Amino acid sequence: MKQDSHVKFTHLFQIPWAELEARRGRVIERLKREELDCMVFFSPSSVFYLTGWEFFVTERPTALVLWWDGAAEMLVPRLELEHVQSVAQGLSGVECYKDYPDLRHPMHYLADMLTRRGRIRIGSDSPGSPAFQGYQGPSIPELLPDYDFVLLPKMIEEMRKIKSPFEISMIKESARWGNLAMALLQEYTRPGERELDVVNRACHEATQAMLRTLGADFIPGGVFWVGAHGNYRGQIGVDSALPHALIKNVKFKEGDVVNGSGTTYPILGYISEMERTMFVGEPSAEQRKYFNLACELQDYAFHCVRAGRTCGDVDRDVRGFYKEHGIADYWMHHTGHALGMDRHEPPFLDIAEETVIQPGMVFSIEPGIYIPGFGGFRHSDTIHVTQTGIELLTYYPRELERLICG
Amino acid sequence: MKQDSHVKFTHLFQIPWAELEARRGRVIERLKREELDCMVFFSPSSVFYLTGWEFFVTERPTALVLWWDGAAEMLVPRLELEHVQSVAQGLSGVECYKDYPDLRHPMHYLADMLTRRGRIRIGSDSPGSPAFQGYQGPSIPELLPDYDFVLLPKMIEEMRKIKSPFEISMIKESARWGNLAMALLQEYTRPGERELDVVNRACHEATQAMLRTLGADFIPGGVFWVGAHGNYRGQIGVDSALPHALIKNVKFKEGDVVNGSGTTYPILGYISEMERTMFVGEPSAEQRKYFNLACELQDYAFHCVRAGRTCGDVDRDVRGFYKEHGIADYWMHHTGHALGMDRHEPPFLDIAEETVIQPGMVFSIEPGIYIPGFGGFRHSDTIHVTQTGIELLTYYPRELERLICG
Repeated sequence: MKQDSHVKFTHLFQIPWAELEARRGRVIERLKREELDCMVFFSPSSVFYLTGWEFFVTERPTALVLWWDGAAEMLVPRLELEHVQSVAQGLSGVECYKDYPDLRHPMHYLADMLTRRGRIRIGSDSPGSPAFQGYQGPSIPELLPDYDFVLLPKMIEEMRKIKSPFEISMIKESARWGNLAMALLQEYTRPGERELDVVNRACHEATQAMLRTLGADFIPGGVFWVGAHGNYRGQIGVDSALPHALIKNVKFKEGDVVNGSGTTYPILGYISEMERTMFVGEPSAEQRKYFNLACELQDYAFHCVRAGRTCGDVDRDVRGFYKEHGIADYWMHHTGHALGMDRHEPPFLDIAEETVIQPGMVFSIEPGIYIPGFGGFRHSDTIHVTQTGIELLTYYPRELERLICG
Repeated sequence: MKQDSHVKFTHLFQIPWAELEARRGRVIERLKREELDCMVFFSPSSVFYLTGWEFFVTERPTALVLWWDGAAEMLVPRLELEHVQSVAQGLSGVECYKDYPDLRHPMHYLADMLTRRGRIRIGSDSPGSPAFQGYQGPSIPELLPDYDFVLLPKMIEEMRKIKSPFEISMIKESARWGNLAMALLQEYTRPGERELDVVNRACHEATQAMLRTLGADFIPGGVFWVGAHGNYRGQIGVDSALPHALIKNVKFKEGDVVNGSGTTYPILGYISEMERTMFVGEPSAEQRKYFNLACELQDYAFHCVRAGRTCGDVDRDVRGFYKEHGIADYWMHHTGHALGMDRHEPPFLDIAEETVIQPGMVFSIEPGIYIPGFGGFRHSDTIHVTQTGIELLTYYPRELERLICG
């Protein structure tokens, strides 16, 4: 059945064109304010944000040129030509170079694209293509010294701080499958089992369920891993006191405190964050005490977040909680961070961050209590700031009785 | 049993100290040549290369300061303190800041470390901490305007071009488990099966076998995925003609040409690359023709690589093969690239690359034939340049008869 004006599909197969158009509209407004003719985006995430095209990032330069009149031209290496043409939305032209470095450097093809309209004023998110995996090359001002050039590295970063209803819905979609991965993780975690056996089984089964539920037309994208993801990242037993532990693949033991997480590979570009402190077997009185305090702490943090306050206000209040409860020595990091396309995004819920919280912002709320040699206690939830308060986008149970593994 | 001078273990549990010491020795030689007192490394991969400490990279700055006298000091956020202390080798001191941005910016702690020894000459791999995930902060010259400062962004990149015997052995270890993941991928690929069901099953089983074989003391590290990895990355049927396709999760059909790959998450920092063109069912005469030509092409490329020639010489010869065989229209990328810690590293086997090939370099050899709308044909192998020729570090069968799936 073809889509027409009468029959509308609401599906998860690609980013709606209206969403991309609105994003581009905001870029064009900014171009007009800055009196620029075009903006060059080298950042792969900005290319995705404005075209819906995700790609395998290498040393080879890729750039989107967005013009004041709405034209959108892309520069890609030869090996991405058919790929970008079949996936990217709303392109008016694609230029391809052979390879990097090649006899004619990719940046000269970009110069061709930029000079075709005569002497223009150019904006860009970085001076040239980033020095990734050994890439070297001239910057735009070096290539085109006679052209006016303005560096605007934060344009898309600023736009991404306020999420659209579509973006919120994708973060919710990610939260749903992260919830399933976490449920399986909790269920399969038992004394004597090894971290990665449990993690791989939970990821595999949750991903199978997710892909079958979303249907055969859902295109997951992605290079290495896709689907739902439940993980411990090494935060098992005493290593739960390392907020950024890495995978060690230890065996779970009776009495372990563990920090699990459930999320997904980006769904049409978006992820969520949800983490839970859980127990293998019955917790001790001491574990119970810090678990309950960590829940109180997170509850308190939820209530500190409100449109109109600054990020710093929230973190200052939360740090006050640590002091009042005599746990300042167990503090290891600020309250949370924005997220959406990246796992961490600015602004940060940090004492020195002056950004005013606004409706549409999305944050992790995850203050933790870390006792070296004993254990770490931290729930993390993804919240959405509304006009009147906050909405939790993640919904895994938070109560101790429901967080016993097995 | 404790390790002593008589009883020596050869194990896979951490990078040998002698290896790290040799790497640091080369940095110190360079410091002396440049008349510098210390070198600051912000790059996470360089921190790993010089200390063996891998970490979850975020916006929070991390830096290693290596002094001319061998002292090695690390700057980390509070949440990494115990982690770096327990994993990094050969540190003389660790300084930690609270968080980013916090009331006192992390870079001021770095300035403290750098000014403690009086007025010194400082080298660094970048002016300041990279602008990752919204990080902002002053550069070293902005913080310490009265100090001599030299930017040396390519120091470690240059060192990494020549692999040590330890590095070669880790790439071989990765190749071994990549081979298993690929064997399972080939075995489970059948008409009617879906890409990710096959991929997830192969990865899961190969990882289980790998971790049990390496033993319970092997620490895989890693944030999201670890272990062995077999993948198609969407290169199935006509999409095999897109060298950098992404995952679509289509069903395999009789007659599909597919490009599979087998590798691992980094093993003590190192990966390998191996890709094979395979068939679902019996290939057609046309598919067979291009498959055989792709094998000839790769064979030819193997013979072009020799210590003393330039990277450009190899790619020029290989491009000549395309012309001679009337397949220049099916060329999409250069012959290959160096690899080891990153999936792509410089130098590139590209017509414009003047670097002279030297013993100890490791490259992928992967010229491909891509026919849009029909299919792509490419084997990729990881090779090691020796004094007298090349050594293949990957060893999956290359013959058509052994590359039929199922």
